[in-house]
Amino acid sequence: MKNPSRYLDALTKELSRLPGIGPKSASRLAFHVLSMDGTEVERLARTLIEVKSHIFRCGVCGGISEGDICPICGDEMRERDVICVVRDPKDVLTIEATGGFHGRYHVLHGLISPLDGIGPDDLNIGSLVGRCRDGGIREIILALNPTVEGDATSLYLARLLSPGGITVTRIAHGLPVGSDLEFSDSATIARSIECRIRL
Amino acid sequence: MKNPSRYLDALTKELSRLPGIGPKSASRLAFHVLSMDGTEVERLARTLIEVKSHIFRCGVCGGISEGDICPICGDEMRERDVICVVRDPKDVLTIEATGGFHGRYHVLHGLISPLDGIGPDDLNIGSLVGRCRDGGIREIILALNPTVEGDATSLYLARLLSPGGITVTRIAHGLPVGSDLEFSDSATIARSIECRIRL
Repeated sequence: MKNPSRYLDALTKELSRLPGIGPKSASRLAFHVLSMDGTEVERLARTLIEVKSHIFRCGVCGGISEGDICPICGDEMRERDVICVVRDPKDVLTIEATGGFHGRYHVLHGLISPLDGIGPDDLNIGSLVGRCRDGGIREIILALNPTVEGDATSLYLARLLSPGGITVTRIAHGLPVGSDLEFSDSATIARSIECRIRL
Repeated sequence: MKNPSRYLDALTKELSRLPGIGPKSASRLAFHVLSMDGTEVERLARTLIEVKSHIFRCGVCGGISEGDICPICGDEMRERDVICVVRDPKDVLTIEATGGFHGRYHVLHGLISPLDGIGPDDLNIGSLVGRCRDGGIREIILALNPTVEGDATSLYLARLLSPGGITVTRIAHGLPVGSDLEFSDSATIARSIECRIRL
């Protein structure tokens, strides 16, 4: 479906680069933009630019921050001896939303993935080692996805950090709360049996 | 899930205003923007602005155009005596993609919907009447959705334009090509029987 304007074409192309937006959604969104108020479109464009120009990586954990250090790393009330390692800044929000973790975070900005050419040096791992070396860390909780890349990264970090006397743990993977054995996939069931805990 | 930055909050809010993008998708997209290259984000913001500043309504059909008159209205090779009436500029592309229509278009920019407070005067109907009055129009094909609003608008236009001696037709609604009676909804089947044609 050829758009009648190269400007509409350009916008459709840019929008279809975004995750989860296919060519049809992109075209629909581009037409929607066309029907929007000029001031609304300008506000959307401005917020896009502002996100890039006002948000930085926290100098401690690598999470997002409007200053040098993010609010969580700067919060003196949070436990200093536990670090939860996550893949993305978004994962920090997801875990914060549970209200069940009171330590600090470390954001890797990716996972080890040899197929994609991503090795340990491409991730925010050096500063995690530095934080552990500075002392005062009792436990590292790895909250990485139960995928091949998550498993590989967890194993790599466990081998890297355990020798320093720090307890390295990984969040449990098994049946979701409220789910049913009958409707769970076999890989999940196998993992839940493997990771069973004593009552 | 509270975002740790008001800039990210603002972008998430703007993105969630777009059609088909819920709060979760908006948050995911905002984080994606954060991970994008600065130049990519600038290009996206610029294409948004450009769409609004370079695209206008065609002075004849009301469709989108980069100049006073759109390429379809300006194309001397297209049939001048048939006008296909559609709701949105996007519908023009959808019909053009079929390659089966060689006349011109008229875009209403909406449908009559008393519940939403949209009456005939809020739509691009006046200029359609003008085009018919100027003469040379043999047939008006109404290609409006088979909804309550589409039905109401079709009926209104048929009553408005038929007295001028113009044939007003509506595109057929019935079973989609390749579909199965068993899996079609009863409203569609009822309409397909009502609109049956002689073989």
